[in-house]
Amino acid sequence: MVGEGQLAVPAVPGLGPPSHAGTATGAPGAGLRRAVIALDVGGTDIKSAIVTRGSDPDALDEILVERVTSTRAADGPGASVAAVLAAVETLRAEVPAGYQVLGVGLAVPGTVDESAGLVVSAENLDWVDLPLRKVVADATGLPVGFGHDVRAGGLAEARLGAGRGAPDHAYVSIGTGIAAAVVLHGQVYVGGGYAGEIGHGGTHGGAPCACGGTGCAETFASAAGIARSYRELTGATADEVPGSAEVLARAHAGDTVARQVWDRAIDRLGELVADMVRLLALPVVVIGGGLVRAGEDLMVPLDAAVRSYLTIHPAPRLVPATLGSAAGTYGASVLAWDAVTAAALEAL
Amino acid sequence: MVGEGQLAVPAVPGLGPPSHAGTATGAPGAGLRRAVIALDVGGTDIKSAIVTRGSDPDALDEILVERVTSTRAADGPGASVAAVLAAVETLRAEVPAGYQVLGVGLAVPGTVDESAGLVVSAENLDWVDLPLRKVVADATGLPVGFGHDVRAGGLAEARLGAGRGAPDHAYVSIGTGIAAAVVLHGQVYVGGGYAGEIGHGGTHGGAPCACGGTGCAETFASAAGIARSYRELTGATADEVPGSAEVLARAHAGDTVARQVWDRAIDRLGELVADMVRLLALPVVVIGGGLVRAGEDLMVPLDAAVRSYLTIHPAPRLVPATLGSAAGTYGASVLAWDAVTAAALEAL
Repeated sequence: MVGEGQLAVPAVPGLGPPSHAGTATGAPGAGLRRAVIALDVGGTDIKSAIVTRGSDPDALDEILVERVTSTRAADGPGASVAAVLAAVETLRAEVPAGYQVLGVGLAVPGTVDESAGLVVSAENLDWVDLPLRKVVADATGLPVGFGHDVRAGGLAEARLGAGRGAPDHAYVSIGTGIAAAVVLHGQVYVGGGYAGEIGHGGTHGGAPCACGGTGCAETFASAAGIARSYRELTGATADEVPGSAEVLARAHAGDTVARQVWDRAIDRLGELVADMVRLLALPVVVIGGGLVRAGEDLMVPLDAAVRSYLTIHPAPRLVPATLGSAAGTYGASVLAWDAVTAAALEAL
Repeated sequence: MVGEGQLAVPAVPGLGPPSHAGTATGAPGAGLRRAVIALDVGGTDIKSAIVTRGSDPDALDEILVERVTSTRAADGPGASVAAVLAAVETLRAEVPAGYQVLGVGLAVPGTVDESAGLVVSAENLDWVDLPLRKVVADATGLPVGFGHDVRAGGLAEARLGAGRGAPDHAYVSIGTGIAAAVVLHGQVYVGGGYAGEIGHGGTHGGAPCACGGTGCAETFASAAGIARSYRELTGATADEVPGSAEVLARAHAGDTVARQVWDRAIDRLGELVADMVRLLALPVVVIGGGLVRAGEDLMVPLDAAVRSYLTIHPAPRLVPATLGSAAGTYGASVLAWDAVTAAALEAL
């Protein structure tokens, strides 16, 4: 991590391709404040931001400019890559006066190998073995930080959010899918890109899952899975029950099917968290993703479910994530600053 | 790790208490070969050994003297501590001419906090919050390495056995109980003493377990649990079916109950291994403990069971442990050498 004034501006070769010469993102200038571009790439949208950082590396970055653009997944994998590059270029043209962009951070869905800079596979985007870090670095001439969206979110929560002060913990994101970032000794464990994919596998039988398995937790215990399960059981339409919040509201109104769907999801989530604790004895588990908006309706029964699956292990402290839907963006910015720092150290 | 001739003999204060003055374990002498005392403390027996090490720190230690003594658990917790100290003293009196003992290593069952040097609890020995490392260090005046029996076994397999060359892997010991050592970046992860206790919890319902839970994997999927389950279902006596090997033999002979008991155990073990892989994407899992003596009758169906519980995750390579029942002793000796090295570095 690097704070304002703590680090000489790195002499990165080709900082800003020729088309950017003369803009604020060109060669480092004295008196300019440092910024990075952070992209949280989703299946549907790219959230992008220009962020700057004050002298406290543990403080949240300040967002200067924010955009949401389409990932253009329907237009094929090439279009999605072009959409990522366009999002970066758009923001580089919008850098406020007095700032210079020193790096880019990318948080990407799917199976992501951080150390190789590779998207091993991203189903929704039809990406396979895509060296995205290099693609963006070559196109921009900037240092590029690169990571899995959930691990990036976990990294942000670990450094800036609910995981601060807990060197060993897990961040579990429960939204469209279910995945975890395992933080041990303060570092996010990558496992070649497959670590933390607890939403898939572990079962025999049940509803078919997009991964090819059956009964995977994602099919009924993710926010999307809760809504889908309820619709399948009741015939409700997606307009009537667009998400898990509507299922919860119906459960509160006395709908027994909604209650069963909700409770079954919580029970499985409790089992997943307990399984992590049984293996790693994690003292803290940060709960993030869209489902955490259910608040105590999630956290209280989830805590009980986790405890019901533990015997000798101390129960973990369950903590709601604090960065909310911005976790991916902040994670991308943390990755960007780390990449800028690494490039500066290499240039020494 | 330290090899012969690579390290100055540490000037450890009080090396050898007064009663040992003049023995081979007294003050360091020129020309003496280095040795350590390694103890694998079990619920019933203490396996103890004097071991020496050549110039290759990755080679197996050479066992000079070996003893098995009673843990004296029935005589109460004080008697068990005395039995540990007596085992060390007995071996110190038997150090072959030309060798000097520089340290002690202890591998201990139960919930063990390595960093605190503490046995948090060891049910079979009735130990609670016992600072065993300090007890042995005070009594012997020697550096004492200290660890959990399964994590010590995993450490030995990682450095000297089946886990060599795999910086990230797990060692699963399936014997009287079921527990795992998680090795990440070459280090055994401790988690305050509770990491790897996958034999307990994770279930609702089933047979009662000594831990207070029900349906724990240890009750039916450990070597002891397999034998016990079969006896309960058939009324066979412990003389007739003393262990899992007899259950396997009966399954091969066409006994359908034995086959069901065996298959159910393998299925649950496969689920446990898959759960570890789903979280940590471990490429290698070393299988140890008594059950591994079943050979292909364990490894082949276990591999299939693990794969059946995985979807997107690459299946791990399952490898039988190579140190067998000596894993704990070698683990204790690795801990002892590490403690000797640490003491020498501190004295620099």
